[in-house]
Amino acid sequence: MKTLADAFHHTLQDVYFAEHAITRALPKVISGVSSKDLKDALKAHLSETRAQIKMLDRVFTSIGEKASGEKCEAIEGLIRECDGILAEATGKQARHAAVIGACQAIEHYEIARYGTLREWAKALGHDEAHGLLSSILDQEKKANHSLTHLAVTSINQA
Amino acid sequence: MKTLADAFHHTLQDVYFAEHAITRALPKVISGVSSKDLKDALKAHLSETRAQIKMLDRVFTSIGEKASGEKCEAIEGLIRECDGILAEATGKQARHAAVIGACQAIEHYEIARYGTLREWAKALGHDEAHGLLSSILDQEKKANHSLTHLAVTSINQA
Repeated sequence: MKTLADAFHHTLQDVYFAEHAITRALPKVISGVSSKDLKDALKAHLSETRAQIKMLDRVFTSIGEKASGEKCEAIEGLIRECDGILAEATGKQARHAAVIGACQAIEHYEIARYGTLREWAKALGHDEAHGLLSSILDQEKKANHSLTHLAVTSINQA
Repeated sequence: MKTLADAFHHTLQDVYFAEHAITRALPKVISGVSSKDLKDALKAHLSETRAQIKMLDRVFTSIGEKASGEKCEAIEGLIRECDGILAEATGKQARHAAVIGACQAIEHYEIARYGTLREWAKALGHDEAHGLLSSILDQEKKANHSLTHLAVTSINQA
């Protein structure tokens, strides 16, 4: 990586890998929780994530690159943390609260990366990519707020 | 982990481990970048992180527990990602932009965890812990905003 364009392409490959990893990890989390509200929120996020992958395909096309992922150690660690909770949190109360917390850590990772990517897209003059990445960023922020709302209004009170 | 109190204690151990890991990782990042503004921002964050560890000691004491860390795979992955940038981003432009991006991913991880922890502290009636965790959360948000400001106003423009 030498230029900002290189960093942009590399980080785009990171999030592409991350979103695919999330689509593989979420079904296990969904089947591992019993709260209907939490299941529904995670199912909605899974379907949103699949749509975001299609938006990332368009980002790659818009900069003249082939869509591809690159192993991202950060998301692997975050997902392992979530898997650890499913294994260790046997009490329903701890399980729901901790799963939401771990999913919010993943959301925040995505918020950080899309925040960076869309600023780089702007600096590089990639207008279409900037628009697409800003849309995904907004969706991630909304998904995070939904989980906060769920935690504060129901799970933590249980 | 059975109860919300268990999840709180476990996640407190995670962030305690994470903050210690950050204090070990940051010096290498600081010496690996040449931008004075970025060095200064990271040095300030290192000293803030050391103070946050002392605040976490007080959180443990306030809930009658001994301060201790527990291996946190998420922060290890995030730090490995940052190390990877130092190894791969040889161009100054890419290096500064990518280091800021990776540090913001770490900041966002902390924002997520402290956001969760302080809500749990509130739900559990741990008033002192709630206050301390809210203070740390505010510091992490400010540190993240400083990095965004640095990226948008100077590094990305370079």
